[in-house]
Amino acid sequence: MAYELYYWDGLQGRGEFVRLALEEAQAPYVDIARDDDGSGAMMSIMDSKTEPYPPFAPPFLKDGDLIVSHVANILLYLGPRLGLAPQDDSRFVVHGLQLTIADMVTEVHDTHHPLASSQYYEEQKEAAKARATDFIDHRLPKFMHYFERVLELNPHGGRHMAGNALTYVDLSMFQLIDGLHYAFPRAMKRFGEHYPRLAALHDAVLARPNIAAYLASARRLSHNESCIFRHYPELDKAAR
Amino acid sequence: MAYELYYWDGLQGRGEFVRLALEEAQAPYVDIARDDDGSGAMMSIMDSKTEPYPPFAPPFLKDGDLIVSHVANILLYLGPRLGLAPQDDSRFVVHGLQLTIADMVTEVHDTHHPLASSQYYEEQKEAAKARATDFIDHRLPKFMHYFERVLELNPHGGRHMAGNALTYVDLSMFQLIDGLHYAFPRAMKRFGEHYPRLAALHDAVLARPNIAAYLASARRLSHNESCIFRHYPELDKAAR
Repeated sequence: MAYELYYWDGLQGRGEFVRLALEEAQAPYVDIARDDDGSGAMMSIMDSKTEPYPPFAPPFLKDGDLIVSHVANILLYLGPRLGLAPQDDSRFVVHGLQLTIADMVTEVHDTHHPLASSQYYEEQKEAAKARATDFIDHRLPKFMHYFERVLELNPHGGRHMAGNALTYVDLSMFQLIDGLHYAFPRAMKRFGEHYPRLAALHDAVLARPNIAAYLASARRLSHNESCIFRHYPELDKAAR
Repeated sequence: MAYELYYWDGLQGRGEFVRLALEEAQAPYVDIARDDDGSGAMMSIMDSKTEPYPPFAPPFLKDGDLIVSHVANILLYLGPRLGLAPQDDSRFVVHGLQLTIADMVTEVHDTHHPLASSQYYEEQKEAAKARATDFIDHRLPKFMHYFERVLELNPHGGRHMAGNALTYVDLSMFQLIDGLHYAFPRAMKRFGEHYPRLAALHDAVLARPNIAAYLASARRLSHNESCIFRHYPELDKAAR
């Protein structure tokens, strides 16, 4: 039976981290809000009065009766099933890396919505400028130095975030770097120079046949300003 | 061998969610930064040039050679070992709930640090006021209505967040509610009236002998303004 992915239509968003894993593994899945009836089915699960454990927010994955919420949790569930994660205790290492990516994604979101996710960007532009400046000056280099160091310290060599084979974390790292290039092109200009292993990982994921085919397909939406990674030139600046 | 918990000394912080699980289960653990040499050992793991997968940030747990980072991941790892989580696929439901708590904890932190975690609260007071207002008006009720509904919809009755037995999520929900009472006493004034099942869960956890003994011990630090849950009266207001 096909996996059912529930996420908003019209943007890559957090759903994209799940899609990349499903696409790499060529797993059968239905992107419910896009392939079916819009967000109706998704909202009716979230607002359900009978579903035992409704999720707080999308994305969530339905596999038979089981509903798994949160990107990192979905990838934890899918990883071994898709051949994209180890089965031994090192799965907790992989999951920890994914949760670090999730934390950074939340911080990327907050660069354009530092005060209230319920309000428009235009209503919090000044605060967004301050938060984005701190993000580019402090948080982005802190996270990226860390991720580069993880590659450097990987005892199996620096081709993968963990172990000696592709995991879902590599795919998510690609998506994170790709989104940052879109949102902050000036800050990311010398990324490959500062973080050569991460840049090589990004390119290696990009070159994978199933990923390349997906990115060239209509299923891959463009980056846009409804997403987490938004390009507002006034928030971008060169890295220090 | 005792579990090793690595977290900052001097505050409850994110480490407290892990401590509550260890204390409830009476599991042997060393709170490294408190019991040993301050944060030196913790920093040397984080800054290690040889550790294969150093964590990005505390808390992290060391069990033999394995290092597990992130509260939710640590509880995922400890849960079945401590008898505080199911072993079947419903563990993904429990983990999803924990990740929702983690998201709310991040939002609580951002009420006093909306612009830059590297700067003092006093440098971002005005923005903090705006973010805290949105948190109290929108986010706190949204999360709490959700968690109350999870209790209501639990097919095993509303005594636990998931299933018919105590899990680490119940302990974390206690800590979340406890911290919110400290940080936002005015906003939380009618909490029990609005969220009776959550209030009952909070009280039931508080009454558990191992938890009560822990809370009465010197191991339980007081809430304070170095923590995630900070009481700044100017950020607090009555819930709408």
